[in-house]
Formats: sequence, structure tokens, C-alpha cells
Amino acid sequence: MAVTMLPDADTFIVLVSFTVPAERRDELVQTIRTFVEEEVRHRPGFVSSTVHTSQDGTRVINYAQWESREAFEAFQSDADAMSRRGVITEFQRDGRPYTIAFQATATA
Amino acid sequence: MAVTMLPDADTFIVLVSFTVPAERRDELVQTIRTFVEEEVRHRPGFVSSTVHTSQDGTRVINYAQWESREAFEAFQSDADAMSRRGVITEFQRDGRPYTIAFQATATA
Repeated sequence: MAVTMLPDADTFIVLVSFTVPAERRDELVQTIRTFVEEEVRHRPGFVSSTVHTSQDGTRVINYAQWESREAFEAFQSDADAMSRRGVITEFQRDGRPYTIAFQATATA
Repeated sequence: MAVTMLPDADTFIVLVSFTVPAERRDELVQTIRTFVEEEVRHRPGFVSSTVHTSQDGTRVINYAQWESREAFEAFQSDADAMSRRGVITEFQRDGRPYTIAFQATATA
């Protein structure tokens, strides 16, 4: 399934940005990957998660899409699932819901 | 043209995150929009720009895709075009190139 960014979609978007020491970057990415694949992906309303690493090695950004705010919040409030985040919680992170304001492409 | 996030694409990705006083959020978004539509969109190698606003009103993130690093850097080094960014330069911003580390969807 291709992940798309559509201005008119009513997808609920959450971006989480981590600041990470470069030497722990791979550990953080692998932990997020395990958590997403074993926990998040199977939740009702989950759409996608695309994890980006900055080329300088100091930032990791998870661009996540959910069907609705309610679906996301139901997951967030599951303390049992949240407890399995492992080292993810050790890193400075800034997570917020976002809305697409506009989009431009080369052709339109 | 639908904007996609593909782990295996060789697209050059730049995320720029702005921290903005909520009361100037709309002004910043409008200025970015004008700059993208009048300048950036017509540059060789530009693919897409998707501008997100945080629901709390204090962050603006431009998720931009270019065909290559070279195309992006050629644009960045055009002082004449850069001089037309207007108020964009007034805001605290953090812009970096990113690579997609992995992607998970509900179905795969």
C-alpha cells in the first residue's frame, strides 16, 4: 500500500520528532521499528508509520497516519501497550497532531 | 499528482520545522505558500511541498521532496530567489535532509 499525503484526506496525522545522540540513532530506529511492527500496526485505525532519519544522524521523525483522532487516542491510552515502548521514552521527543495546510507539486 | 512517501525512492527529502507564535501562524503559512507557488515550484528537480500546521498552532512543517540533492542545493544557492522568502526568515526554523529508514502500514 503506497503511503500518500493528501491535503483533503481526513486522516489524523501525528509527527513525532526525536533528538538523539548520533551513536544511539540506530538503536532508537530499531526500537521504534519493533514497537510499530509488533504493537502499533495491529491497532484499529492505524494507517501508516514512516520513520525518517536526518542525514546528520541527530534527528528521527515518525510521520504517522491514523484513521481518526479517536483511534490514535485509544492507542495512546493503552498503558499496557505503551509500557512496551522500551528505550523510546529515553529520548527527547516532540509529538503533535498536524493538519495539511496546502500542497504544491511540480505539475500542479 | 499524488504525493507519496516511498522507502525505496531516491527522492531527496527536506523537512523544515518552524516554531511560530500562534497569532502569526497564518501569515507564515501564506508566505510559504506564495514562495512555493511563485518560486520553488518552477525550479528544476522540484517534486513536491506539503506544508503542515500543528493543531496547537505553534509549529509549521514543510515536507519537501526534490529529485536530487543537487537540484535542492542549486535552488538554495540562488541568492536572488532566496531573497524573496520574505517573513519566512524571521521565524526560528530547523531544516534538514532526511532519509526514510522504514515504513509500516496496517496491511503490510
